[in-house]
Amino acid sequence: MAQHEGPVVDLNVDLGEGFGRWSLVDDVALLDLVSSANVACGFHAGDPSLLRRVCEAAAARGVAVGAHVAYRDLVGFGRRYVAASRTELRDDVVYQVGALDACARAAGTRVAYVKPHGALYNRIVHDEVHAAAVVDAVVDLGATLPLMGLPGSAVLRLAADLGVRKLTEAFGDRGYRPDGTLVPRGRPGAVISDPTLVAARVVRLATDGVVDASDGSPVRAAVDSVCVHSDTPGALDVLRAVRTALDDTGVLVRPAVQVAR
Amino acid sequence: MAQHEGPVVDLNVDLGEGFGRWSLVDDVALLDLVSSANVACGFHAGDPSLLRRVCEAAAARGVAVGAHVAYRDLVGFGRRYVAASRTELRDDVVYQVGALDACARAAGTRVAYVKPHGALYNRIVHDEVHAAAVVDAVVDLGATLPLMGLPGSAVLRLAADLGVRKLTEAFGDRGYRPDGTLVPRGRPGAVISDPTLVAARVVRLATDGVVDASDGSPVRAAVDSVCVHSDTPGALDVLRAVRTALDDTGVLVRPAVQVAR
Amino acid sequence: MAQHEGPVVDLNVDLGEGFGRWSLVDDVALLDLVSSANVACGFHAGDPSLLRRVCEAAAARGVAVGAHVAYRDLVGFGRRYVAASRTELRDDVVYQVGALDACARAAGTRVAYVKPHGALYNRIVHDEVHAAAVVDAVVDLGATLPLMGLPGSAVLRLAADLGVRKLTEAFGDRGYRPDGTLVPRGRPGAVISDPTLVAARVVRLATDGVVDASDGSPVRAAVDSVCVHSDTPGALDVLRAVRTALDDTGVLVRPAVQVAR
Amino acid sequence: MAQHEGPVVDLNVDLGEGFGRWSLVDDVALLDLVSSANVACGFHAGDPSLLRRVCEAAAARGVAVGAHVAYRDLVGFGRRYVAASRTELRDDVVYQVGALDACARAAGTRVAYVKPHGALYNRIVHDEVHAAAVVDAVVDLGATLPLMGLPGSAVLRLAADLGVRKLTEAFGDRGYRPDGTLVPRGRPGAVISDPTLVAARVVRLATDGVVDASDGSPVRAAVDSVCVHSDTPGALDVLRAVRTALDDTGVLVRPAVQVAR
Repeated sequence: MAQHEGPVVDLNVDLGEGFGRWSLVDDVALLDLVSSANVACGFHAGDPSLLRRVCEAAAARGVAVGAHVAYRDLVGFGRRYVAASRTELRDDVVYQVGALDACARAAGTRVAYVKPHGALYNRIVHDEVHAAAVVDAVVDLGATLPLMGLPGSAVLRLAADLGVRKLTEAFGDRGYRPDGTLVPRGRPGAVISDPTLVAARVVRLATDGVVDASDGSPVRAAVDSVCVHSDTPGALDVLRAVRTALDDTGVLVRPAVQVAR
Repeated sequence: MAQHEGPVVDLNVDLGEGFGRWSLVDDVALLDLVSSANVACGFHAGDPSLLRRVCEAAAARGVAVGAHVAYRDLVGFGRRYVAASRTELRDDVVYQVGALDACARAAGTRVAYVKPHGALYNRIVHDEVHAAAVVDAVVDLGATLPLMGLPGSAVLRLAADLGVRKLTEAFGDRGYRPDGTLVPRGRPGAVISDPTLVAARVVRLATDGVVDASDGSPVRAAVDSVCVHSDTPGALDVLRAVRTALDDTGVLVRPAVQVAR
Repeated sequence: MAQHEGPVVDLNVDLGEGFGRWSLVDDVALLDLVSSANVACGFHAGDPSLLRRVCEAAAARGVAVGAHVAYRDLVGFGRRYVAASRTELRDDVVYQVGALDACARAAGTRVAYVKPHGALYNRIVHDEVHAAAVVDAVVDLGATLPLMGLPGSAVLRLAADLGVRKLTEAFGDRGYRPDGTLVPRGRPGAVISDPTLVAARVVRLATDGVVDASDGSPVRAAVDSVCVHSDTPGALDVLRAVRTALDDTGVLVRPAVQVAR
Repeated sequence: MAQHEGPVVDLNVDLGEGFGRWSLVDDVALLDLVSSANVACGFHAGDPSLLRRVCEAAAARGVAVGAHVAYRDLVGFGRRYVAASRTELRDDVVYQVGALDACARAAGTRVAYVKPHGALYNRIVHDEVHAAAVVDAVVDLGATLPLMGLPGSAVLRLAADLGVRKLTEAFGDRGYRPDGTLVPRGRPGAVISDPTLVAARVVRLATDGVVDASDGSPVRAAVDSVCVHSDTPGALDVLRAVRTALDDTGVLVRPAVQVAR
């Protein structure tokens, strides 16, 4: 690959979030715009055939496949906390990563990183037991897969302690408070849906490592990846605007991890 | 490993057939007696923590782990035919093998072969479409895993055609008809439950490659592995008798496949 | 209710076909157009909260709620045959009807009829065992609920034998062969998607009890209800055209069964 | 029924706690010993055919069927807290009660009361939101079913507020602290497994309304029902001892609720 001199960003979205007859988004259209796909593993969404199709489309575009592991809660879409024991959760994560990785291998790629989903993602920002369960799973699988999460979260701290590479991320379509934390959902400014605005924020994150907080103050956010939500109304338009803005600014969109073949 | 001059047999049983609070058999006690374990993958039985525990116990004993893939039918224990499409079934098999393999890796071993379970096992004796789906899955995963099944079955014929190693098996506790097929379940003599009798049959299979049919005539059965059912009442006693008889006769019980570590 | 002198039709559609985060159709918009709703019961689709919301909207509009019972196959949307035993299937149907009926009661209405879904619907046109299982279930629940199905099907014949009221239906958006059977899916003319054409067919069914076969010959179809599919692209437009045409022609759209409150 | 002059007790156990191929206890043997059965409804355990068989055996013995409603968590056996919303939980309870009631009707009886299971049971001792969801469900079904729970729990307080009859229960095989609360599981004396001891405690509860606390002090426990766990090793022996002691003491074992037919 030729050297790219300018700014680089990894753009990640959630994919594979259908099940059988149901789907949420146009996975293939989104794969044309991003560099990393957090693919459901069957516990909150994702039947095997969908996972394979998404992995095939990702492989064809050089998009990195991440294992979007979740609590076992199909009806709740992984958005409800489940009081699993540390062992249960560890083993659930191992199982999900392996299942998706087999789909990825059959599709000509591999799982390249792990990103917890939904209630699990939020829980392991502070819950040490569930955070440890997720890190245990990655360690038990050989500690070769990076773990994506929120900067400053318990899970990334534990990952670092145990020799697991961490990938930090910022959200291009979420509001930030001056202290660098997210504006909680339900509050004004929590979610930003204007394509032009989101595009500008992602460009600024990619070029300056900065995001504007809700009071206008700049927040330092030197992250490994930028997430834009894929399942909000108009998400495809937002992501098209983001990608166009990045391309126009000369920002290279490239996976944060090496994509196995 | 020192060379063993005498007869050798691979003894396989079904394990990991619990789910959450439920279990069927004493997996660990059975693992002391056999050389290969067909471990459920979550679709007909088997939660991730159970799979891991079984794989850990198998790894500690040098027992080969096989992926016991099934139709997605937890309530029916994989014993009901499900009219999946070829693609769905292929992808379900890939998913299950990968999920179990990750549990095995976390436990210090690997999936060493694939054996379909229950209704799927019986269906692909003759159903070319579902047989092809299973072989497709193994091919898509790299064609490195052998596929265990009934001699003369459609699935093993297709496996051979597509470069997948096949493992044939006989049943130590099932009656045979003179033409080498099994006495159908429900008929007299279909299942043999006397430990001494099963032990004698397994020894004869291991040493002579022969099993006595229901009319007393000898049936040639030069197979790669011998299966004894683990979930019938008294199965543990039967398997203890089988193992003692094999040991006493000087038959080495050894996996048919190389056990990865 | 004032006496209506002109023609009357019961118009039924499938509803409640989402699950958790996923939905297929705008249930409420469709409920404004029809008189009977075949509501999923959780086995092929339908979480309890969705069922309740659909039942509440049906109750508010005087739409009859039917239990859309199915094989237990969420990932296959009930479109795959499952080789359940007669007892298993009977009990699955009882369970589903009761579950939906409780949601309906909480919503101020009751289950008013039973209509099998998908693969089960098709299977019991000819499979006597599964047909008997469905009829058994209705009998075991008191034989008070009518059973909707295809004219001439095994299930409706058995229903009549066992004292269960039957409701026959025709399909407004499916092609018919001159012998009165449906043009099989996948063949030309199997599905009719033009709103004007479907509307004309439903009006003719309602007023004359006749549908035009694919060769133009009239087929007698004096049925209790007319089904229009709700999950095809453009289904809402089709149903709007159907309802407008019925209203304009003076056909009253009214449930075939009495709606309990 | 002839008038019984002596003491009366309702003895309740958890039943129907298998799923498909799996079972935990001998449901029928236990039904010979008790007067009320808390029957699983499919969310933590219980397939429809098992529920029907248990209801048939209960009906034949005049045992009251209670709906043992739970969080939707089959793999966790309903023993893990799930952060359901109030609406989701309410609708899940409605669905479960209705499903079991249909099985009961097909078996010649009816659901006669509601008792939450496992993590839900424990949660609604103090969680006002989940407690309200359970009471809402009973109210939405007509407020005719009594609700069984722990004396002093949030759920029974709310039930009383909303006109739902409450049934209090004590545990015959659990240790009590002097303040009337249970010795937490995992602590010494939390579970009592000696049949003679449990039998004596149940007799004392039935005749005096008193249970001895861990320090020997008597605790007042004038409850509507006494629960003995069915799934501990030796539970059948414990319950046989309990029943024999009750019979020998002249205590009538009778449902706390009227058993519908």
